[in-house]
Amino acid sequence: MAVYTEVTDEALAGFLTNYDIGAMVAFRGIAEGVENSNFSLRTTAGDFILTLYEKRVDVAELPWFLGLMEHLAGRGLVCPQPVRARDGCALRKLAGRAAAITTFLPGVWPRRIRVEHCAPLGAALGQLHLAGGDYAPTRPNALGPSGWAPLLARCAGGADAVQPGLGAELAAALARILATWPGDLPVGHIHADLFPDNVFFLDGAVSGLIDFYFAATDLLAYDVAICLNAWCFEADGAFNVTKARALLAGYAAVRALSAAEQAALPVLCQGAAIRFALTRLFDWVNTPAGALVTRKDPMDYVRRLRFHLLASDARSYGL
Amino acid sequence: MAVYTEVTDEALAGFLTNYDIGAMVAFRGIAEGVENSNFSLRTTAGDFILTLYEKRVDVAELPWFLGLMEHLAGRGLVCPQPVRARDGCALRKLAGRAAAITTFLPGVWPRRIRVEHCAPLGAALGQLHLAGGDYAPTRPNALGPSGWAPLLARCAGGADAVQPGLGAELAAALARILATWPGDLPVGHIHADLFPDNVFFLDGAVSGLIDFYFAATDLLAYDVAICLNAWCFEADGAFNVTKARALLAGYAAVRALSAAEQAALPVLCQGAAIRFALTRLFDWVNTPAGALVTRKDPMDYVRRLRFHLLASDARSYGL
Repeated sequence: MAVYTEVTDEALAGFLTNYDIGAMVAFRGIAEGVENSNFSLRTTAGDFILTLYEKRVDVAELPWFLGLMEHLAGRGLVCPQPVRARDGCALRKLAGRAAAITTFLPGVWPRRIRVEHCAPLGAALGQLHLAGGDYAPTRPNALGPSGWAPLLARCAGGADAVQPGLGAELAAALARILATWPGDLPVGHIHADLFPDNVFFLDGAVSGLIDFYFAATDLLAYDVAICLNAWCFEADGAFNVTKARALLAGYAAVRALSAAEQAALPVLCQGAAIRFALTRLFDWVNTPAGALVTRKDPMDYVRRLRFHLLASDARSYGL
Repeated sequence: MAVYTEVTDEALAGFLTNYDIGAMVAFRGIAEGVENSNFSLRTTAGDFILTLYEKRVDVAELPWFLGLMEHLAGRGLVCPQPVRARDGCALRKLAGRAAAITTFLPGVWPRRIRVEHCAPLGAALGQLHLAGGDYAPTRPNALGPSGWAPLLARCAGGADAVQPGLGAELAAALARILATWPGDLPVGHIHADLFPDNVFFLDGAVSGLIDFYFAATDLLAYDVAICLNAWCFEADGAFNVTKARALLAGYAAVRALSAAEQAALPVLCQGAAIRFALTRLFDWVNTPAGALVTRKDPMDYVRRLRFHLLASDARSYGL
C-alpha cells in the first residue's frame, strides 16, 4: 500500500491556498508505490498527483529530484512536472511531511510485459539520458557500486537463511563485479529504477515516466542494464533475448551505445542484478514479518545475477 | 491496500470493448477499501471506478447491490452508478473476478471528523433511507442480530487473548442485547457500513456515498446507530454528544425517528457496537500476523459497547 500518512481535508484545503490550481474536487490514495504516500488530486483546474515524502527519502535531496523532473519536462520528456506554488516553491510541508504537487500523466503501466513494450521503453530511456545531459547539478548514486559492499555487510548474516551458501555466493560475485567494473564510460543522470510500474503506455507508445526518486548521476549504460534486468526476464527466470534486442534497438535509435559500453554490458547487468538482489535481501532480512509492506523475493535477482555471470559478451543480450 | 488482483493492459482494453465509454486514458489502483480491488479508470468519455470483487463478496448477491445503487442514483442520491455495457449488463468478468464499472464521484472523505460533518452525514443517511423505500428486492442482513451469536462462537476462543475476560463480557452483553432487541421498528434498505471513508464531502456538503457491499434490509434506525458509533466517538474513546446531536438533527430533518425508534437507540447502538467488535475480533483472531491487511483493534468497539450498555435512554445521545 502506498498511503502511509493521511491528510485531513482542512489541511489539504489550507495547503492548496498556496497554489493557483483552483479548488479541490476529489482526492484519493493511490495504491501503487512503496516509498512515499501518493494521492490523486483533482481540482477545478485539472488533475495532479500529491506526494508526501516518507522517511526513506532525504528531504535535502528533494530539490535535486524536482529540479531534474522540471528540467526533463522542459526538454520534452513526459514525466511528472513539479507545480510551483505562488511563492515559486514546488516543495512544501503537509501533515508533517515534505510534500509536492506534480502534474498527472495519462497511461497505464504494463502488468505483463510484451515484446512490443520493450523498444518504446528503450527509446524513452535514451530520451531521458539525452534530455538530462545539460542538467548541471549532480547526485552521487548511493546505491551504485560503492554502496554494494556496505549493503552486503549489513545483510550477510541473513543471506544464508534465504538460501544456504547465498552469503558467500554474493560476496564472490561482488568481488568479481567490482574488480571488472568499468570506470571510463559516459556518465549522466540515470533513472536507476525504471521498472514497468514506472512507465506508462498509451496506444502502444510510452506516455510518461514516473518516480525519479532513485535517480542519480552514474554510467548511462548502467541504466540500460537495470532495464534489461527489469524488462527482459520472464516470470520463470528465463532471459527473453527478443525483448532485450528490442530494448537495445529502441535505445540505440535515440542514443548509440559505444563499443566500450556494449562490451561492458555483462558486468553492468551483473551490477544491476546484485544491486536489486542486495536491497531486496536487506528488506527481506530487516522487515518484520507483520509489516504492511510486500517483501520482494531476493532470489529473483540472484537468479538474474547467475545468468549475467555466465554472459561472455554483448552477444548474450542479442547484440 | 486495496489492489488484490492485477489487470493487464490487454485484458482491460478487451474488457472496455464491451462498453460505450470510449478508449482508455489512465488506470491507477486506489489505496482505499479493504474488501475489493478498486481502480480509478479514465477514458476519453470521463472518469470511472473499476471494481473487481474479491472472495469475501458473494457473486450471486452482486445484482442486488448494483440494482440498489442504480435505484438510489435514479432517486437523486449521489452514489456510484453502475455503467451498463452495450449488452445491458453491468456485471461482467475480468481477470478471473466479477467486475463492474461505476461512475466516479467527486469529494474527499474526512480523515478527521468535525462536528460540521455530522449534520450533513445524518441528512444523507435519511435521504438514503427514503430513496431506497421503493426498491423491492430484499437482502437479509447476515451481519445483523441473528449473525452475532455464531460470529462470537467462532472467535470466543481468541477473545481472552485480546483481553482477559473479554469472551464472557461479550457473551453477557450479547445475551442482553438479543433479549431486548426491538422487533417492530420500520424496516428498509440500510447501508450498514457508513463509516467516514465511505462518505465524500465537498465544500462542507456530502458529495456522495460509496461502498454499498454491506447493504441489507434491516431496521432503519440500526443504520443510525451504526453512524453514531462510527462518527461520534473521539480517538480517546470519549462520546461526543455534540456530534451525535448534529447527526440526529440532520437525519430528523429528512426522516423523523419515531418515538419507538428513539427509545430503542441505546440497544441499537449496543448492537452496532457489538457487530463491529465481533467482526474485528474475528479478523484479529483469524488474520495471520504476516498478512497484508490492517487489522483493526476490536477494543475500540468493545469500549463503545460499554458506553452504550450504560445508556438508559435516547437522552444519552443528545435527544
